[in-house]
Amino acid sequence: MKNNLSQRAIVRLTQYHTILRDYCRKDIKNITSSQISSLLEIDETQVRKDIKNINCKGKCKVGYSVIELKNIIESVLDYKIIKRAYVIGAGNLGCALAKYSKFNDYGLEICALFDVDKTKIGKKVDGKEIYSLDQIKKHINESKINIAILTTPNKVAQEVADFLVESGIKYIWNFAPTILCVPEDIHVWHENLIGSFLQFCAIENIS
Amino acid sequence: MKNNLSQRAIVRLTQYHTILRDYCRKDIKNITSSQISSLLEIDETQVRKDIKNINCKGKCKVGYSVIELKNIIESVLDYKIIKRAYVIGAGNLGCALAKYSKFNDYGLEICALFDVDKTKIGKKVDGKEIYSLDQIKKHINESKINIAILTTPNKVAQEVADFLVESGIKYIWNFAPTILCVPEDIHVWHENLIGSFLQFCAIENIS
Repeated sequence: MKNNLSQRAIVRLTQYHTILRDYCRKDIKNITSSQISSLLEIDETQVRKDIKNINCKGKCKVGYSVIELKNIIESVLDYKIIKRAYVIGAGNLGCALAKYSKFNDYGLEICALFDVDKTKIGKKVDGKEIYSLDQIKKHINESKINIAILTTPNKVAQEVADFLVESGIKYIWNFAPTILCVPEDIHVWHENLIGSFLQFCAIENIS
Repeated sequence: MKNNLSQRAIVRLTQYHTILRDYCRKDIKNITSSQISSLLEIDETQVRKDIKNINCKGKCKVGYSVIELKNIIESVLDYKIIKRAYVIGAGNLGCALAKYSKFNDYGLEICALFDVDKTKIGKKVDGKEIYSLDQIKKHINESKINIAILTTPNKVAQEVADFLVESGIKYIWNFAPTILCVPEDIHVWHENLIGSFLQFCAIENIS
């Protein structure tokens, strides 16, 4: 199902889901497309179209059932399927991601961190141990985890990525601000925080 | 100019720029659309279209001048116009963003951090001081900075956002995983790290 959705639709659905979680917590039973539209500053027609696309039906004047829409989004986006990953680099960003509680709600489980700094090795971040990077192959072989979240400094990102690929990592979510060269069967997702900020500036005309 | 570009085009241009910076550093003079396309796994026609849209001309069999294309992107996306911001919350994520060197290259200057934790106040992160959050109004009045990067825990994000708005902040880049309610004249950009990851999973069919 999710393969039929555009990347932008997937992002919008995760945003609707964030609102639905807030509504659940406040024990609100129903939500309208107009409420979602105004909170996210997205066109209401778009909201209705997205929700229709995932086969959730609303009721006239009442809107959608919060629980039902939340469950459908979770099912469509495979939130319940656990995806296990390692964080590479136990600096501020690596630790922030390891502690980012929302990841768990969406099926992303960070199992451990890896670093080359001996003063960090053996310590824990939010209950997750920091191991020495040169031990990662053993961990990958035992755990079958093949997703790495790369948060090393820019300078060493390519070298570390090469080492991860050699060690058996297949998917890299790259937070280092550089474009990585990897073999064809390895998949890299370049996180682009500054791109996100520049969109904000362009849309809101900040200058 | 940048207002005529789609959000996705802006993101792609920042990615091309990352490659061009790497090429500059390696003193490579020219780049082809096919090189960009293969590094980013983007369709080559799309790359050529994006570059044509910003009025950069390539030469047959040589490609584009690295310096020229880099300069045009910087000019189109206003990289040279400094946008000053405060980070709210000096936890791991706030500190990571304050240290994220790439922001400076793209015109985003983080000037200070704010927190409520007394043990953090007065310390510095990458040369930027951490101030007490209750002092922010004074800083905003003096500096005229009106962009806040919100990295507080989820639970207090709305309360802190309300306080920021009262204090004179106009733009909020929100990293807390909640949708903020703000007055109509305040602009919020919801950063969506988990949305980004879910796109990656959907595209690569990770499950």
